[in-house]
Amino acid sequence: MASDYFAGVDRITYQGPDTTEDLAYRWYDKDRVVLGKRMEDHLRFAICFWHSFCWPGSDVFGAGTFDRPWLRGANDAAAAAAKREAAFDFISRLDVPFYSFHDVDVMAEANDLPSFRRNFAEAVDDLERLSGEHGKKLLWGTANLFSHPRYMAGAATSPDPEVFAWAASQVRDAIEATHRLGGVNYVLWGGREGYETLLNTDLARELDNFGRFLSMVVEHKHKIGFQGTILIEPKPMEPTKHQYDFDTATVYGFLQRYGLEKEVAVNIEANHATLSGHTFEHEIATAAAFGIFGSIDANRGDPQNGWDTDQFPNSVEELTLAMIEIIRAGGFTTGGFNFDAKVRRQSIDAIDLFHGHVGAIDVVARGLLRAAATIEDGRLDQFKRDRYAGWDGELGRQIAGLDLAGAADLAVERNLSPQPRSGRQEWLENLLNRF
Amino acid sequence: MASDYFAGVDRITYQGPDTTEDLAYRWYDKDRVVLGKRMEDHLRFAICFWHSFCWPGSDVFGAGTFDRPWLRGANDAAAAAAKREAAFDFISRLDVPFYSFHDVDVMAEANDLPSFRRNFAEAVDDLERLSGEHGKKLLWGTANLFSHPRYMAGAATSPDPEVFAWAASQVRDAIEATHRLGGVNYVLWGGREGYETLLNTDLARELDNFGRFLSMVVEHKHKIGFQGTILIEPKPMEPTKHQYDFDTATVYGFLQRYGLEKEVAVNIEANHATLSGHTFEHEIATAAAFGIFGSIDANRGDPQNGWDTDQFPNSVEELTLAMIEIIRAGGFTTGGFNFDAKVRRQSIDAIDLFHGHVGAIDVVARGLLRAAATIEDGRLDQFKRDRYAGWDGELGRQIAGLDLAGAADLAVERNLSPQPRSGRQEWLENLLNRF
Amino acid sequence: MASDYFAGVDRITYQGPDTTEDLAYRWYDKDRVVLGKRMEDHLRFAICFWHSFCWPGSDVFGAGTFDRPWLRGANDAAAAAAKREAAFDFISRLDVPFYSFHDVDVMAEANDLPSFRRNFAEAVDDLERLSGEHGKKLLWGTANLFSHPRYMAGAATSPDPEVFAWAASQVRDAIEATHRLGGVNYVLWGGREGYETLLNTDLARELDNFGRFLSMVVEHKHKIGFQGTILIEPKPMEPTKHQYDFDTATVYGFLQRYGLEKEVAVNIEANHATLSGHTFEHEIATAAAFGIFGSIDANRGDPQNGWDTDQFPNSVEELTLAMIEIIRAGGFTTGGFNFDAKVRRQSIDAIDLFHGHVGAIDVVARGLLRAAATIEDGRLDQFKRDRYAGWDGELGRQIAGLDLAGAADLAVERNLSPQPRSGRQEWLENLLNRF
Amino acid sequence: MASDYFAGVDRITYQGPDTTEDLAYRWYDKDRVVLGKRMEDHLRFAICFWHSFCWPGSDVFGAGTFDRPWLRGANDAAAAAAKREAAFDFISRLDVPFYSFHDVDVMAEANDLPSFRRNFAEAVDDLERLSGEHGKKLLWGTANLFSHPRYMAGAATSPDPEVFAWAASQVRDAIEATHRLGGVNYVLWGGREGYETLLNTDLARELDNFGRFLSMVVEHKHKIGFQGTILIEPKPMEPTKHQYDFDTATVYGFLQRYGLEKEVAVNIEANHATLSGHTFEHEIATAAAFGIFGSIDANRGDPQNGWDTDQFPNSVEELTLAMIEIIRAGGFTTGGFNFDAKVRRQSIDAIDLFHGHVGAIDVVARGLLRAAATIEDGRLDQFKRDRYAGWDGELGRQIAGLDLAGAADLAVERNLSPQPRSGRQEWLENLLNRF
Repeated sequence: MASDYFAGVDRITYQGPDTTEDLAYRWYDKDRVVLGKRMEDHLRFAICFWHSFCWPGSDVFGAGTFDRPWLRGANDAAAAAAKREAAFDFISRLDVPFYSFHDVDVMAEANDLPSFRRNFAEAVDDLERLSGEHGKKLLWGTANLFSHPRYMAGAATSPDPEVFAWAASQVRDAIEATHRLGGVNYVLWGGREGYETLLNTDLARELDNFGRFLSMVVEHKHKIGFQGTILIEPKPMEPTKHQYDFDTATVYGFLQRYGLEKEVAVNIEANHATLSGHTFEHEIATAAAFGIFGSIDANRGDPQNGWDTDQFPNSVEELTLAMIEIIRAGGFTTGGFNFDAKVRRQSIDAIDLFHGHVGAIDVVARGLLRAAATIEDGRLDQFKRDRYAGWDGELGRQIAGLDLAGAADLAVERNLSPQPRSGRQEWLENLLNRF
Repeated sequence: MASDYFAGVDRITYQGPDTTEDLAYRWYDKDRVVLGKRMEDHLRFAICFWHSFCWPGSDVFGAGTFDRPWLRGANDAAAAAAKREAAFDFISRLDVPFYSFHDVDVMAEANDLPSFRRNFAEAVDDLERLSGEHGKKLLWGTANLFSHPRYMAGAATSPDPEVFAWAASQVRDAIEATHRLGGVNYVLWGGREGYETLLNTDLARELDNFGRFLSMVVEHKHKIGFQGTILIEPKPMEPTKHQYDFDTATVYGFLQRYGLEKEVAVNIEANHATLSGHTFEHEIATAAAFGIFGSIDANRGDPQNGWDTDQFPNSVEELTLAMIEIIRAGGFTTGGFNFDAKVRRQSIDAIDLFHGHVGAIDVVARGLLRAAATIEDGRLDQFKRDRYAGWDGELGRQIAGLDLAGAADLAVERNLSPQPRSGRQEWLENLLNRF
Repeated sequence: MASDYFAGVDRITYQGPDTTEDLAYRWYDKDRVVLGKRMEDHLRFAICFWHSFCWPGSDVFGAGTFDRPWLRGANDAAAAAAKREAAFDFISRLDVPFYSFHDVDVMAEANDLPSFRRNFAEAVDDLERLSGEHGKKLLWGTANLFSHPRYMAGAATSPDPEVFAWAASQVRDAIEATHRLGGVNYVLWGGREGYETLLNTDLARELDNFGRFLSMVVEHKHKIGFQGTILIEPKPMEPTKHQYDFDTATVYGFLQRYGLEKEVAVNIEANHATLSGHTFEHEIATAAAFGIFGSIDANRGDPQNGWDTDQFPNSVEELTLAMIEIIRAGGFTTGGFNFDAKVRRQSIDAIDLFHGHVGAIDVVARGLLRAAATIEDGRLDQFKRDRYAGWDGELGRQIAGLDLAGAADLAVERNLSPQPRSGRQEWLENLLNRF
Repeated sequence: MASDYFAGVDRITYQGPDTTEDLAYRWYDKDRVVLGKRMEDHLRFAICFWHSFCWPGSDVFGAGTFDRPWLRGANDAAAAAAKREAAFDFISRLDVPFYSFHDVDVMAEANDLPSFRRNFAEAVDDLERLSGEHGKKLLWGTANLFSHPRYMAGAATSPDPEVFAWAASQVRDAIEATHRLGGVNYVLWGGREGYETLLNTDLARELDNFGRFLSMVVEHKHKIGFQGTILIEPKPMEPTKHQYDFDTATVYGFLQRYGLEKEVAVNIEANHATLSGHTFEHEIATAAAFGIFGSIDANRGDPQNGWDTDQFPNSVEELTLAMIEIIRAGGFTTGGFNFDAKVRRQSIDAIDLFHGHVGAIDVVARGLLRAAATIEDGRLDQFKRDRYAGWDGELGRQIAGLDLAGAADLAVERNLSPQPRSGRQEWLENLLNRF
C-alpha cells in the first residue's frame, strides 16, 4: 500500500529547541503568536506534489534512485491514486495546512485531449475528497505547459496556434479545478515561454501572444468568479536559454505593457532569484515596491552551481533577510511558503523527505522569529528613517516640489556642499546577527 | 604639446582587406552603400573621452601605466585643454563623425559648485570651437554623477536631498551644453543609483525619487527645445552591488511606472548586457520589441571575468548577431556606435589607442556587411516567417479572436494534437556562418 | 528499419565554400594538406554514440522529443542492434574516420553483472563487425559509471567497496573491448566522482581511492598490452556539486600525487573548460605546458547558462584560438576531435543531426585553416619571442643563474629601473582577425 | 594627530551575548578554552594594513571617501609614520594578537630601488618599536609585486628579467624584515602572475620562471634561518584575466611540479575561493587533504557580484562550516585568521572600522563555538565513519588489495549487486543547524 509508505513516522509536533528528536519542530510552533499573528497564519506552508511525490531522483546524467511504490510502473490511474493518497498522508504527518500541484502531477498520464481532461477530472474529484478528509487547503494549482513534447517551443508563445489552444484547455481546466478545490491562488510558470536562439524567434510576436494569453486567463478568472490571485513565477533561464519571465522587474514591465499590473502578482522562488543575479530578499522587496508581491517558492540554490538545484532552505540567515522584507511588505494575503525543493538524489528513503521538510520548516520559522525580533527592536528601521530624514525636512520637501531648473538653482544659490554620512553597513549587519 | 601625442599616425583610410598596413580600415569604407545607406550613416561611430583620454591605466590593484602628457599632473585648466586638443586630434585621425563625454571628462577639476559650473562652461566653449574646427558632432553628453564622494550613496536616489539638487545642477548644465553643441542624444547612467545593502535602503522611496528625477530631465528637455533623445544606460551591478537600471526589461518597467516609455530609450552596452545574464543581441531585440531602442556602447566583456572589462569588440560573429537585430529594429535614428572600451592596462602607447579603435571599427563594419548579406539572402527571415505561419492562417486568426474558454473549446472540439516541427537551430547557425 | 533512418541523406562531400548545398563540406577537405598534414589526419573527427543516438531529446523539465526508431521501446537487444546499425550508417554518411562510445550506449540494458557482461560482449562483437564493414576506427571507449543508481555516490570514490568492484568489472571489460576494437585511447570521466556535501564526505579517503583506481587501470592497460592513451576528462561540477577532476590543472596535481603524470593525459571538453572558469584554449595550453594534452571533446556552452549545454561548436573565432594551441602543442598523437555535442531539443529530425555535425566539422576545419595561416604568417609568434627576448639576452641568462640574494644584489647594484613595454593586445587581436 | 584618530573608542572587551554595547565582543572571549585551547590561540586574529589603513575608499568608478588623516597628502615619511602609529593603536584597541603588511603599506612611497630599500628599512625599524611597545606579533609579511606599473606584466612571470630582479630585491628585503620582526609566515600573492591574453603569453616559460622564483624564496628562507611558513595565496582572476595560482588544487599541482609541496602551504581567502568556483570550506578541506593548509584570509564575497568584494565575514553559518574543516585539519600551526576585508565605501568613519572588525571577530568566534559543539556531539563524524565502514570491513580490505582484474573477478564471482544507502544530506544539514 502506497499509503503505508510514510507510516513509520508519526505526526510531527512542536517540541522546542531542546528536544532530542530528529523529527520534531524545534521552532515552528504553529499556534505561537508572533507580531500579532499565529505562526501558521504567517507562514502558510504548502507541500508540492512534483518534487516530493513525482520526481524519481533522476537527473540529466542518471536514472531515478527513489523507490517510491507509485513510481515503479506506468503512471496509470492506480499509480496516480496511490500517489495522491501518499501525498496527503505525508502532508498530514507534517501538519501543515496547504498543498499545491500541476495538473499532470496528480493524474494518470494521457496523450490526447479527451483522455487528458477525463483523467484530470477524476484526479480532481479525488483531491476534493482527500483534502476534505485531511483538512488540507490548496495554496495554488497550475498547469504543466512545459514537459510534453508539444510544448517544446512554448505554450502561449508557441509558433503553432494549436499548441496555444491546447494550453488554453489545460489552463481552463486547471484554474476551474483550483476554484472548485477552494484554491487561493493560481500560478503560471512559463518553463518554455522563452527561446533557444533569436535566429528562429519572433520576440515581439511571442511577447504579444504571451500577454494575450495572460489577459485571457485573467478574464476567465473573473468570469468564473475565482477570487484567488493569479501569480507569475519568474525564472531567467532553464530549461530554455532565455525565459521571458526573467525576474520580478521584467514581469512588472510585462504586466504594465499588457495592462495587468493590478491583476497579477509574482510567486518568487529563492533559487530563481539567485539565478537571475539577485538575492532572494531583493526580489521580495522589488515586488513589494511595485505592489505585486504574491507568494514564495521556498528553496535554495548552490552559489557554485549555475542551475536550479532546488535544495531545501537551510540558512536561517538568508531566511531572516527574506522574512524582514515579507513582513515589511505586509506579510502574505493569499500567498504562502510553498516548498519547491527536492531532497538530494542520494536521499533515497521516505524518511529523507521528512528531514528535508522538517528542517526547512524550522529554518523558515527561525527566520520569522529573528525578523520579528529585529523589527520589534526597532533600531534597523529607525536607522533607515534617519538616513532619509532630509527628505522629510524643509529642504527635502522644497526640493521635492521643484523642477530641474528650480532644483539646480537652489543648489547654486545656496552653494550646496553636501556632506557624506556613513551608511553603517557593518554595524547594521552586526545588529542583525544579535537576534 | 599634447596635440603632438598622436602625431605619428596619419589619418586612417579605407584600404581594403588586402592591405598590409596595420592602421588602415579593411572593411569600414564610410561611403560604401549597404542596404541603401552609407556605412558611416549606418554605424555613426563615436569616440568617448573617459576611457580613451581620461583613464590612466589604473585598476583596483595598481596605479596608472599610461604616460599621457595631460595626465601627468593635476587636472587643471591647462591639462583639460590639452586633453581636449588631443582628443579631437585623435578623432580626426580616425575619421569618425562623433564624440561623447561626461562633464568631468572635459573640464578642470572643481570641488565647489560655482567653480564646477565655471570650469565646465569654459570647457564647453572650447568643445564648440574644437568640434567646429574638426567637423565633429556630439553623439551624446552626460553628467558624471558617480565618481565624486558626494555621490557615494547615489545622486537622484541619494538619501540626502542636497545631493539630488547638486545632481540637478550638473544635469541641467550638461543637457544644456549638449543642446548647444548640437548633440543628438543625452545619456543617463546611474552608476550609484542602486544599493549596497537592503538593510539601509528604502527601495520604494529611492525608485520614486529616481523616477521623479528622470521626469524632471524630460520636462527640462522639452522646455529648452532639445530635440535629441534621452537615453538610459542599463547596467546590473558594479560599482554598487545592485543597480536599479539592471537591464533593458527592467528599465522598460521603470519607464512605464513613471509614464516615460515614450520619452526615453536605452543605450545598450555589450558588456553590461552580458553582466546582466543576457546576450548583447537579446538586449537590442528586447529594446526594439518595446520601442525603446536608442544607441549602443560598443565593447566586449570577458566571459570568465565577472566585471565590466570594457574591452574593444573583436568578434565579427558577435557583431553580426547584434547588427542583424539593429537592422531589424530599423537601424539608428539619433543613436550610434560609441566605443565604451579601453585598451588593456599593458597597452601603454599612443599607438595602442589606434589599434583598439581601428580594429573595433572594422569588426563592427564586418558585422554590418555579414548582417546585410544575411538579410539580403532572405532565408533566415523566410524561415522565421514560415515558422509562425500558422498564426497567419485561418486557425491562427480564429484562435487569436477567442477567449480562454473559446480557445479551449476549439482544442477539445477538434481534438487537436499539435505536431512538433523542428526549430532547425543548427541549420540556421550554419547558414549564418556562410556569410 | 533503423538503418533507413538516415537514408535520405547522401554521403557528405567537400564542395567548397561556394556550394549552395546545405549538406556539404565547405571547408573540411579531408585530403587537403595543411602545415604538412592531411586535414583528416590533423582533426581526426569522431562521432559519439551517447548524444547522437542514445539521448531522446529529454531534459530535466521535459520528455524526449526525438522519434528515433530504436528509442521507441525498451532498450533490448534488438533496439541496441538497430542503434548500432544506424550509428555506423550515419558516421559513414558523414565520412569521418572515428567513433566513440560508453559501454551502456551500445548494448541492451542489463541490471545484474552477468547479463551486463553478456550484453556488452554481444555489442562488442557487433561493433567489430560494423566498424570493419564501414572502415571506421575507435577513437576511444569508456565505461558509464554515473547513470545507474548504484553509482549515485561515485564509482571509484563510492563509500561502498562493492560499487568500486562493480566499476572495476565495467572498466576491465570496456578497456579490453577498446583494445580488441583497435581503439587508440581509453577515457575516464568521473561524473559522480565528487561530492554533494562535505558533511558526509571523507575527501582525502575518496581521493586516495580515486588515485588507486586510476593506478589499477594504468597497470591493467600495460598488462593487456594496450598501447592507447589513458585519458581523464576534467569537469568542475554537474551532476555532482563538486567533481574531483575540476580542470586540467587539478587533474595534473592529482596525477602527480599518484605518480601518474607520465601515464595519463586529458581529454578537454570546451564546455567543461568554460564551466570551470577557463577558456577552451587555456585548458589546451595548460595541458600542453604540463605535457598531458590528449584529446578534445568538441562542443560549446552558452555563456549565459551555467550548465553543460553541449551545443555544437559554431564559432570559427573560438576554434581558431583552440587550434593555434593544439598546433603549438604538436597536434594530436592518439587524440582527435570527438563531438560531445547534441542537437537542441527542438531539432527533432534526422536531418538536424546532419546539420549539427556538418556545420561543426566545417567550423573546426576553418579554425584549422585560420590557425595555420596565422602560424605561417609568423608575426604572432615573432611578437611573442621578442617579448621574452630579454630572458635570452645576457642579463636574462645571468639572472636565471642567480639565487634570490644574487638577483636582488644585481638589481641594487645596477639600480635597475625596468621600463614597461606595451603588450599590444589590441594589435594582436586585430592581426588574428585578418586571417 | 593620527594617533588620535581612534581615540574615541575604548579597548574592546568580552562582555557576552547580552551586552547592549555595540563595540564589545559577545562571543570572542580570548581566554575561554574550547576543545582544549584558548580562543585566542585557536583563532590567532590579525589585522592587515592595506585594507584598513591604506585603502582610501576608492573604486574603479570613484574617488576615495575616507578622511583618514594620513591619507590626505602625499605618502611621505611623516604620513607613513602616522599610519603605522594609527594602525597599532587600532590593533591594540581591538585586543587581537597579530598584524600583517605588504612592504609598500608601511613605508613612504619610493620609485627607485635605493630609496625604496631605505624607506622600507626605516619603516621596519619603526614596526619593530611599535610592535614591541604594543605587544603585537607579525602573522606575516609580504611584498607588493602588483601595484607599481613595472609589474604590469607580472613580477616573477614578467617577460622582462629586470622586473624579476626588482621583485627579488623586494622579496629578499620583505622576508628578511619578516624574519627580524619575528613573523611566523611569509606570503606570496601573485596578483599579476597570470595573463591577459594567451596571444602574447608564453605560458610554459612563465610557469617555469614562477616555479624558479618560488624555489629561490624557499632556498633563501633556509639560508637566513627563517623558521616561518612560506604561503601562496590562490586567486583565480582579477586583476589579471587568469592568474596562475587559480585555486588550492592548482597550487598543489604547481608545487609538486617544482618539488615544493613540502615547503609551501596555502593562505586561503574566502572570497578567492568562491571566485574560483568553490566553497570556502572546500578549499580548506582540499588543502588539508594535500597537507598544505596554512592560513586564512577572512572575508566574504557577494554571490551576485563576480569580483573580489572583500567584505567582512558576517555569516556564522559559513564560518561554522569553515571552522569544522580547520579543526579537522588540526587547527592552525603558524597560520591564523587575517582580515583581508574592507569596510564598504560608504562606511567612512573611524568607528566603521571597529564595527567591521568587531562583528567579524564575533562571527568567527561563534563559528568556532558551533563547530566545536558539533564535533563534541560526535554524530556528524560518526555518520561519516559509518558511511565508509565498508572499506574497513573484510570485503573492503580485500578489494583494497586487489588489482583491476582481481576486483573485477570478485564482483563477477560474487555477483555483487550493491545496494544504495541514503547520504542523509538533509538530516546532516538539520543537525548542524541545531548547534
